[in-house]
Amino acid sequence: MRDFSNDHSALALNTATLGHNIDGHGAGWSPEQIIDACAERGFGAITYWRREIGDRGVEIGERTRAAGMQVIGLCRTPFLVGPLAPPTRQAVMDDFRASIDMAAALQAEVLTIVVGGVIEGSHSMTESLKEVASITAEAAPLAADQGVKLALEPLNPVYGGNRSCLMTVRDAVNLCEQIDHPCVGVAVDVYHVWWDLTLGTELQRVGKPRIFGYHLCDWMADTTDVLLDRGMMGDGVADLKSIRQAVEDAGYDGFCEVEIFSAENWWKRDPNEVLDVCRDRFKTVC
Amino acid sequence: MRDFSNDHSALALNTATLGHNIDGHGAGWSPEQIIDACAERGFGAITYWRREIGDRGVEIGERTRAAGMQVIGLCRTPFLVGPLAPPTRQAVMDDFRASIDMAAALQAEVLTIVVGGVIEGSHSMTESLKEVASITAEAAPLAADQGVKLALEPLNPVYGGNRSCLMTVRDAVNLCEQIDHPCVGVAVDVYHVWWDLTLGTELQRVGKPRIFGYHLCDWMADTTDVLLDRGMMGDGVADLKSIRQAVEDAGYDGFCEVEIFSAENWWKRDPNEVLDVCRDRFKTVC
Repeated sequence: MRDFSNDHSALALNTATLGHNIDGHGAGWSPEQIIDACAERGFGAITYWRREIGDRGVEIGERTRAAGMQVIGLCRTPFLVGPLAPPTRQAVMDDFRASIDMAAALQAEVLTIVVGGVIEGSHSMTESLKEVASITAEAAPLAADQGVKLALEPLNPVYGGNRSCLMTVRDAVNLCEQIDHPCVGVAVDVYHVWWDLTLGTELQRVGKPRIFGYHLCDWMADTTDVLLDRGMMGDGVADLKSIRQAVEDAGYDGFCEVEIFSAENWWKRDPNEVLDVCRDRFKTVC
Repeated sequence: MRDFSNDHSALALNTATLGHNIDGHGAGWSPEQIIDACAERGFGAITYWRREIGDRGVEIGERTRAAGMQVIGLCRTPFLVGPLAPPTRQAVMDDFRASIDMAAALQAEVLTIVVGGVIEGSHSMTESLKEVASITAEAAPLAADQGVKLALEPLNPVYGGNRSCLMTVRDAVNLCEQIDHPCVGVAVDVYHVWWDLTLGTELQRVGKPRIFGYHLCDWMADTTDVLLDRGMMGDGVADLKSIRQAVEDAGYDGFCEVEIFSAENWWKRDPNEVLDVCRDRFKTVC
């Protein structure tokens, strides 16, 4: 397992950690402010959200690289199925294509897919996942044409109703095998998988070429909000070292991306403090 | 798979469906009122909560059987580990023993174990589950002496922080195998397992003699509270028929127990209406 105590170049920031995934949260820093603050602290990469990029993809991508970092990700495609997805398959594909275009402009390595909930009225995860596979398979060649990888991210089962009928790494690996396109892999997020003791076994099945990301945070014992109360690494109950061991044993040697949604705690703090704590915790408890 | 459309004798009520698990909720019916209303509607059994039994275990058990029903369960032991457990192992065992005594007085077939969250400071599900196994193994002979079975109930991963470090049927089956006592089995609850496509495979491993209960409700797509907003069967996204198929394929032929925590909906309604709807949905969508 890699030792980060004296080398944190694998540390990446997902800008949601500063509240950038939702309007009205966080300190409202510009991408340029984030880039400078991350570069100063030796972060190796940044993942952005579509809402902060607008039509500045090329510019922000270049700015990030000029500061010595990579753009490793863009969040995210539309929900593909379920109650929160665009109303038609055509509308889903149009927005999927727009998100691929933005990732390409940024030269972001990976575009994250949050698949959406169970199709209304279907009462069937299985049927819903079939539609997810079909849509993703249609998008894969479009992404490949632009040099973008698609990461299927299984979410914690608490989101199964409306945000993600894909809830386990096992099911994500199965989807990957079914779609069988080199540009389609999985993202592993501590918040979503910390409870899963089959993680190592399942990741061995998919292996290094298909693990497209590893996201850090913690699960708070007394969490008050399953959407916006994620914990800073070390403050919760997740076994961070064992989880990373499982991911690295499967061959992953990429960035570790801190992604903390925290409306009542970290989003209310000075981003400089948040970034300092991310770096310190990364070196000590991750 | 059994056909309940013309025979609902396998239907059981968990009194939490009428708010009886928490003070100040529901219409406050007495056990006698519940017994009469369930018997009238052809329910086959009832599961009670400790708070409504007090020292009336023998009396309420006899009253239930006199009305032609069984007492199939008692909820529940103390949390065994984690932040909400009693402060010492001795205190846990004392309360565990008290819950076994109450189950015996009721002649309840099964006592449910909700194991409690990850041990504080351990950051380890594995260590926490070891302690759960140790405590349950110590309690098993005490339960056996009184003719009570112990059902380990895995909870939805959303409860992993403080209520249950046991979050999958797989891990529950593993615990059973490890403890290896005929009085220790698993309970399967739709709310906790609906997202798990390995359910059938895992239940096959443990088989009929160790499946001690099957609980019904539904997962609402837009759930607002993961503790007290469970759905009535048919109102949510769970694939109820497939889940029951998996349970019955593993050999289960016992009661199906409706257990709906619903502070803002079902607990505010007339219990007569709630029981009618439970029966109707059981016959049509479960």
